[in-house]
Amino acid sequence: MKIIIIGATGTIGKHVVSALEKDNEILKVGSKSGDMQVDITNPDSIKNLFEQAGPFDALISTTGDGHFGPLPKMTDADFRIGLNSKLMGQVNLVLIGQHYINPKGSFTLTSGSLADDPIVLGASVSTINGALDSFVRAAAIELEQGVRINTVAPGVVEESPGYFPFFPGHIPVSMHRVAQAYVKSVLGAQTGQTYKVV
Amino acid sequence: MKIIIIGATGTIGKHVVSALEKDNEILKVGSKSGDMQVDITNPDSIKNLFEQAGPFDALISTTGDGHFGPLPKMTDADFRIGLNSKLMGQVNLVLIGQHYINPKGSFTLTSGSLADDPIVLGASVSTINGALDSFVRAAAIELEQGVRINTVAPGVVEESPGYFPFFPGHIPVSMHRVAQAYVKSVLGAQTGQTYKVV
Repeated sequence: MKIIIIGATGTIGKHVVSALEKDNEILKVGSKSGDMQVDITNPDSIKNLFEQAGPFDALISTTGDGHFGPLPKMTDADFRIGLNSKLMGQVNLVLIGQHYINPKGSFTLTSGSLADDPIVLGASVSTINGALDSFVRAAAIELEQGVRINTVAPGVVEESPGYFPFFPGHIPVSMHRVAQAYVKSVLGAQTGQTYKVV
Repeated sequence: MKIIIIGATGTIGKHVVSALEKDNEILKVGSKSGDMQVDITNPDSIKNLFEQAGPFDALISTTGDGHFGPLPKMTDADFRIGLNSKLMGQVNLVLIGQHYINPKGSFTLTSGSLADDPIVLGASVSTINGALDSFVRAAAIELEQGVRINTVAPGVVEESPGYFPFFPGHIPVSMHRVAQAYVKSVLGAQTGQTYKVV
C-alpha cells in the first residue's frame, strides 16, 4: 500500500511512520523536511504535492497549527491561525486529494480530545477539533469509489511534556496507542469515525 | 432583561423574538432590517454594533450563511463562505461581545443537527456546526463574571419546506420547540451546552 504521511517527522507522525513502514511504501511529507514538502495552508501547494506524488492508497495527516491563548484576549486573527492551518489545511488535503486517491483508499486526519474536553486557553483549538470530527462524519457519506475517512483525536501525548501543565488531570497517552489508532483507520474498514485516544 | 437578537427577522429569529418580547427589551438586529444592522463577517461592524447598543444581558444569534454542494466539487472558497459567516461571524459576536455583556449575561449561538447527522451536500455546514458546538463547550470555561454560552442545534425546521427534499427521513421540527430552546438557554442557568432540537 502506498501511504502519504503529512507531518511525518513530527511528534506523532514519526511513530505512525514506524508503525506502517515495514509493510507499506511510505511517502514522508513535511513543511520543511521529508521526501516531499507541502504548505497545507496553500491549496496550490497541496495540488502540486498530489501531482508530484502520483496515485496513492492512504493519506494520513498528523499536522496543523492552532492558537492557544486566553479567551478574553482572543481575536479573529488568533482564530484564523487554526482555521487556515489545522482545519482548512486538512480539509483541503481531502477536497483536493479525493481527485487523486485510489479507489477504496482512505484519509485519516488529526483532531484532538479538546473537541469534547476543553482546557483553559484552548477555545480555538477545541473549535477546530470539533469541526474536523464533524467534517469526517459528513465527508464519509459523499466520498466516492469506496474511499473512507476518519479522524484520530488524541489527548495530550506522553512525548509532549511541555503541554502537561496546561492539561491538569489529563493522563498523557502513549505514542503506541496513538499510532495504532492511525493503523486502525488505514488498515480497518470503518469510515466517518473519530478514534479518541485518551 | 435587555436581549440582542441577531437575525431577528429570519425564519427562526422571528419566533425567538415572539417568545421573548413580552417580558424583555429586545433589540432586533439584521443584516439589512431590524432596529440595527450588522455585517457579522466584519469584526469592525460587530464592534460598532456593541458600541451603539450599549450593555446588554443576553445575545442570541440565529444567523449565518453556509455553502451546500457536492463534496466532489467542493473547494476551499466554498468552505470559506460558512467559515467567514456562520462560524467566525458567531464566534466574533462572542470574542467582541464578551467585553460589552453584563455580568451573568448569556450568549446563545445557532449550530445545527448536521454536526452529528450529516446529509449529502452538507459537508461544509456539518463542519461549521460541529465547530460551534465545540466552541461553546470551550468558551464556557473561560467566560468571566458568570457569563454563560450555549448553542441551539435545530434539525430542518417546519417553516423551511424548500429544504425538506435534502433531509430525507428527517422529521421537520416545530418552530415552537426551536424557539423554546433559545428561551431555555437565556432564562436557564446552564452553560457550555448544545440544545439539540430534532
